[in-house]
Amino acid sequence: MMNKALELIRAQKFHDARAVMEEMNPVDIAGMFEEMSPEETVMLFRLLPKETAAEAFAYMSPEVQEQVISALTDVELRGVLDSQFMDDTVDMLEEMPASVVKRVLKVTDPDTRHLLNRLLQYEDGTAGSIMTTEYVGLKKSMTVRQAFDRIKKEAVDKETVYTCYVMDDGRLLEGAVAVRELLLAEEGAKIGDLMTENPICVETTASDEEVGRLFQKYDMLALPVVDKERRLVGIITVDDAVDAIQEANTEDFEKMAAMEPSETPYLKTSVFVHARKRVVWLLFLMISGILTGQIISHYEDAFAAIPLLVSFIPMLMDTGGNCGSQSSTLVIRGMALGEVSTRDILKVIWKEARVSLLVGAVLAPVNFFWIFLRYQSAPVGLTVALSMYATVFLSKLMGCLLPMAAKRCRLDPAIMASPLITTVVDACSIFIYFNIALWILHLS
Amino acid sequence: MMNKALELIRAQKFHDARAVMEEMNPVDIAGMFEEMSPEETVMLFRLLPKETAAEAFAYMSPEVQEQVISALTDVELRGVLDSQFMDDTVDMLEEMPASVVKRVLKVTDPDTRHLLNRLLQYEDGTAGSIMTTEYVGLKKSMTVRQAFDRIKKEAVDKETVYTCYVMDDGRLLEGAVAVRELLLAEEGAKIGDLMTENPICVETTASDEEVGRLFQKYDMLALPVVDKERRLVGIITVDDAVDAIQEANTEDFEKMAAMEPSETPYLKTSVFVHARKRVVWLLFLMISGILTGQIISHYEDAFAAIPLLVSFIPMLMDTGGNCGSQSSTLVIRGMALGEVSTRDILKVIWKEARVSLLVGAVLAPVNFFWIFLRYQSAPVGLTVALSMYATVFLSKLMGCLLPMAAKRCRLDPAIMASPLITTVVDACSIFIYFNIALWILHLS
Repeated sequence: MMNKALELIRAQKFHDARAVMEEMNPVDIAGMFEEMSPEETVMLFRLLPKETAAEAFAYMSPEVQEQVISALTDVELRGVLDSQFMDDTVDMLEEMPASVVKRVLKVTDPDTRHLLNRLLQYEDGTAGSIMTTEYVGLKKSMTVRQAFDRIKKEAVDKETVYTCYVMDDGRLLEGAVAVRELLLAEEGAKIGDLMTENPICVETTASDEEVGRLFQKYDMLALPVVDKERRLVGIITVDDAVDAIQEANTEDFEKMAAMEPSETPYLKTSVFVHARKRVVWLLFLMISGILTGQIISHYEDAFAAIPLLVSFIPMLMDTGGNCGSQSSTLVIRGMALGEVSTRDILKVIWKEARVSLLVGAVLAPVNFFWIFLRYQSAPVGLTVALSMYATVFLSKLMGCLLPMAAKRCRLDPAIMASPLITTVVDACSIFIYFNIALWILHLS
Repeated sequence: MMNKALELIRAQKFHDARAVMEEMNPVDIAGMFEEMSPEETVMLFRLLPKETAAEAFAYMSPEVQEQVISALTDVELRGVLDSQFMDDTVDMLEEMPASVVKRVLKVTDPDTRHLLNRLLQYEDGTAGSIMTTEYVGLKKSMTVRQAFDRIKKEAVDKETVYTCYVMDDGRLLEGAVAVRELLLAEEGAKIGDLMTENPICVETTASDEEVGRLFQKYDMLALPVVDKERRLVGIITVDDAVDAIQEANTEDFEKMAAMEPSETPYLKTSVFVHARKRVVWLLFLMISGILTGQIISHYEDAFAAIPLLVSFIPMLMDTGGNCGSQSSTLVIRGMALGEVSTRDILKVIWKEARVSLLVGAVLAPVNFFWIFLRYQSAPVGLTVALSMYATVFLSKLMGCLLPMAAKRCRLDPAIMASPLITTVVDACSIFIYFNIALWILHLS
């Protein structure tokens, strides 16, 4: 359908194109804009019915939004902004250059401008920064009938109507009521009797990870956001929570692969930015690698005597890194999902210790036997097998301890993932390896 | 509140406990069950109002559900099952031992039993396995008033009423209509005129990753699931989509850290299962490490002549592994989010090639200078710097190529993550390093 609409536009069959686009989802229409030249973009935008255009606008990439904004007249721009939800406008403004922000704020009415300025102040990644202010507010004393009248009157401008929020005169959050409950109730019933008291809510400063966890745990469609005095200031709808969850996951993936997190999609990030986000951690980890090298040069005499020893270094290093990354990934993910907390530290250590004994009991003998069969040397086999056992044990313990310690210190556990643990474990396992070698093979 | 209720129960103040629990969210009540002994569990369950008990039941862990089921009479069990949504019952049965499944199927009525048997056949991780069959179905010819009458009549038993689905007499999916639209429409308006035609839908065999992507892209509250003939068979609600998204993410995290994915939370998985899920990959990767070692032993003469060469091996290996893991993580994540497709392979290679040139241009000179300053040897410094440049370039290319190739071959790209790439890159970088050394240092 998308390709068909594009073809029709390029063939200047605007009437037909419009008919095709009316059948399309606004998200897909927004997708079409990404494929077009700036001139086509503006033409297409004017071709759409006003409402569809405004809806599609919210789903466009910041670059396309900027193109559209710069081509629109003030009146047109105001129309688009009026039909957008507040949280979408805020998201958009956060990505725009200062000149565009200025123009947008100029064309909006004073009340909206005031609100936008307030919303823009919430720190990125907090509940305040992803909430919207368009919710249906009710009073305890209303009847179901009155509630429906209000919902019908306000529905067009509200992001969701399916959960309504009950406040007192001071805007303190008193309860929540689902439209489903209202549909099932008698027309004369009082909202105060139907509502759920003390609904789950968060403060504006809560992190988006916390927001995601609450949605996942309590299966909600919307989450009320309150200020320090428990006054309702906005709501987060489940679609924004899904985005927040995925962003938090992407951030963890990136941090765990030793990168500074990036908010733009892979293909849209410039080569320079990609390099910058990666090189800092690489430099830091390279220095750790150099330290491991220094430990090795300490034992030059040992591998001058038995050069074979060098050839087991990669295997020990790789296995240590992999073991550590297994444990750290499980612990970091468990903490992100709220399944593991720092209080569980002893349980986790006890579990990892036993797992490493089991895993080591498989890997160590395998090493002993292949080395014995290949090189006919039991002492070398024993050296490698014992070092492997120690490496597995150590890396599993580091793998669970470091992320939990980071969390304890209010750092993000994700930075303690495999790359960092690998380098720490490398140094330790090389040290252990050569010391076992000196001892068993009577070198020195 | 949870602790208070627990204290009251243990002090046998059941009336007070019940009062406290009536204020609690069913999710939190389910959480209470996890902390109790099997005897307390059953007592608590009987203490709850029937509806709350049934709601909380859906949020309990499989172990507690099993305890409860085994203690309930057939009549009580049937009551709980009747008030549960079909997808929650299916999820539960998938975790239960055969004897419990048999008993559950025995106490349900024939229609439900038939449906449960059909739903249990959908493969785990597909849309069919997470959908529910409780949705509101409408006809095109209905008026808004008639639609509301049906919604009100059926709402109690339906998982969501906020999106209703329009089918013809053969159950073919014709459209979807939101309750919000119905609330805004005239009472006499026809559903056929209000509905969105051709709503976004998936087939029962679609993967849960696909389902997650659709929810994220189109901001829906529910997604209709159809069979091959486009007949509506169920819907997936957004709360289940959120769970599916998080499960898919956890699976990727685990695969990317060289583990077989597990469905149970970290602390609830036994030590033996933990060890089993980890040891296979460790063994396989250990063998790759052995091969890298074999490459090293090939160059014994080189490091017998210049033992210093050995001490740069860890740094080269670590940096290669880290570079590869950065690229592979970005590409795997980009594909999981639908931001990167296999068609983009040339764009990705071109980007990674340029990024690696930039990153190498930082890392290589740093190495040259510190080695030159520390060991006063320009040839050794040059050897390491050139090897570093080659390693960075190679690992970034492998890091993007291998996951995309896996996807091309319909394998999960996540298995091509850092551990596997690290071992491949290790072998190559060691080979390159020693060959550059032989060439520059005139060894051989």
